[in-house]
Amino acid sequence: MTIRPLADRVLVKIEEVQEKTASGIYIPQTAQEKTQIGTVIAVGEGTDKVKVTVKVGDRVMHDKFSGTSVKADGQEYLILSMKDILAIIE
Amino acid sequence: MTIRPLADRVLVKIEEVQEKTASGIYIPQTAQEKTQIGTVIAVGEGTDKVKVTVKVGDRVMHDKFSGTSVKADGQEYLILSMKDILAIIE
Amino acid sequence: MTIRPLADRVLVKIEEVQEKTASGIYIPQTAQEKTQIGTVIAVGEGTDKVKVTVKVGDRVMHDKFSGTSVKADGQEYLILSMKDILAIIE
Amino acid sequence: MTIRPLADRVLVKIEEVQEKTASGIYIPQTAQEKTQIGTVIAVGEGTDKVKVTVKVGDRVMHDKFSGTSVKADGQEYLILSMKDILAIIE
Amino acid sequence: MTIRPLADRVLVKIEEVQEKTASGIYIPQTAQEKTQIGTVIAVGEGTDKVKVTVKVGDRVMHDKFSGTSVKADGQEYLILSMKDILAIIE
Amino acid sequence: MTIRPLADRVLVKIEEVQEKTASGIYIPQTAQEKTQIGTVIAVGEGTDKVKVTVKVGDRVMHDKFSGTSVKADGQEYLILSMKDILAIIE
Amino acid sequence: MTIRPLADRVLVKIEEVQEKTASGIYIPQTAQEKTQIGTVIAVGEGTDKVKVTVKVGDRVMHDKFSGTSVKADGQEYLILSMKDILAIIE
Repeated sequence: MTIRPLADRVLVKIEEVQEKTASGIYIPQTAQEKTQIGTVIAVGEGTDKVKVTVKVGDRVMHDKFSGTSVKADGQEYLILSMKDILAIIE
Repeated sequence: MTIRPLADRVLVKIEEVQEKTASGIYIPQTAQEKTQIGTVIAVGEGTDKVKVTVKVGDRVMHDKFSGTSVKADGQEYLILSMKDILAIIE
Repeated sequence: MTIRPLADRVLVKIEEVQEKTASGIYIPQTAQEKTQIGTVIAVGEGTDKVKVTVKVGDRVMHDKFSGTSVKADGQEYLILSMKDILAIIE
Repeated sequence: MTIRPLADRVLVKIEEVQEKTASGIYIPQTAQEKTQIGTVIAVGEGTDKVKVTVKVGDRVMHDKFSGTSVKADGQEYLILSMKDILAIIE
Repeated sequence: MTIRPLADRVLVKIEEVQEKTASGIYIPQTAQEKTQIGTVIAVGEGTDKVKVTVKVGDRVMHDKFSGTSVKADGQEYLILSMKDILAIIE
Repeated sequence: MTIRPLADRVLVKIEEVQEKTASGIYIPQTAQEKTQIGTVIAVGEGTDKVKVTVKVGDRVMHDKFSGTSVKADGQEYLILSMKDILAIIE
Repeated sequence: MTIRPLADRVLVKIEEVQEKTASGIYIPQTAQEKTQIGTVIAVGEGTDKVKVTVKVGDRVMHDKFSGTSVKADGQEYLILSMKDILAIIE
């Protein structure tokens, strides 16, 4: 069973807070932070106006208070629009 | 007798709440949830700006508080615009 | 004497509330309902942006609180824009 | 001396309230009514976006609270935009 | 020295209130009036979206509360956008 | 060192208030005035939608409360968008 | 590890306040100032509507209260949209 996002939407699995990444960059996800990091699970086909420029597996940074949360298999997901995704974390 | 939605609208039959699907994904539809699942009964022809990218029989996830509810034959339906439909559930 | 709607507007004659249609579908028009059913009496020519996709004689479902009401020959009419018409009832 | 409306504007002479027209249609213009009837005196040339689809001499129904009123020769006129004109009365 | 309006703007010299014009049309400019009459002194070149359809010397009727007033040589001028000009008075 | 404005922005050096210009036009810049005069110091390249139609050295009249002020070398500058510039003073 | 901004976004490293630059221009960054200066670290690919016209290494002036702040390696970054960037400082 799959959640297939429509239009310019993207399904994202929210990452657990991590203190420090392997490479040393530290992107805290505390309550004060406005951004959150997640992994792209599925993407929509885009629209004439908005292309989907992230792909499955990308780690993305998004505005913490954007999107619609859905729960599936005990895991929390977010359905985000492309405009809510600020950057890809590589 | 048929309700034939116009433009980018879609007629959806709201699903009864189900605790767990056959394949194990659990998408609760409690009062706290912001989304709801329904089955597409009829679709409009789309507009120049917005294509209808769901088809009759699709199970769709939509924002719980969007659309206009209509009752017919004791069943509650929703008339949704494409922009209110977040994802297809497969 | 005729009321000829302009642009994407449609002149609609509001139906009396009916408990049950011949084919058994029941679309109540009580105070709680958000939609209403009417019959199209005249249509505008549409605009570059919005086509008129209903025709004279169509029964249409529209948002109850949209449009501008006009009275003529003791009958209440509504002038609706295409965007206010949700569906055709067949 | 002439008032020549610009763009998609139309100069309208407001009709006196009439209880019943010759052909029997009754369109009251009481305080409760939201619409008013006037006769087109002059029209603008339209714009790229909005065509003027009424002509001098047309009787038009418009939203009562739209437009800008001007007085000339003791007669009250309205300068309306095309979007404020709902229908032509024939 | 010249004030040369930019884009779709027009420089207008506001007329003194006049009780009655030569041809007999009376367009009062009292405090209750919403419109005002002025003479076009200079015009901008227009934009891709909005053409300037008045020319120097035209008497124009505009919304009284629109535009930006500037004083020069003891005379009050207005810089108006085309959208604020309702009609040409001929 | 240069401040190079982006898009349809223009860098303007605000003029000291002057009672009367050489040619006799008087454009006061008192607290009551809504406009201000400045000299264009640098211009952006424009965008697809908005062209920059002023050039370095032009004296421009702009809305007093628009733009973002920056200080450099003890001189106050403004970064304005083209839409905030009403006219060129020649 | 890299933060790669999407669409018309730009990653900026905020500069420490500096009293005076080598060339003598003084752009204070006090609490009263509305603008801030930063160095571009990474840029998005732009969109059909908005091109990214700054490049990595550019010093840019931006509205102080725009963008989304992120912290990485103890350094504060901002993710800005092109519209928030007023000028390039050369």
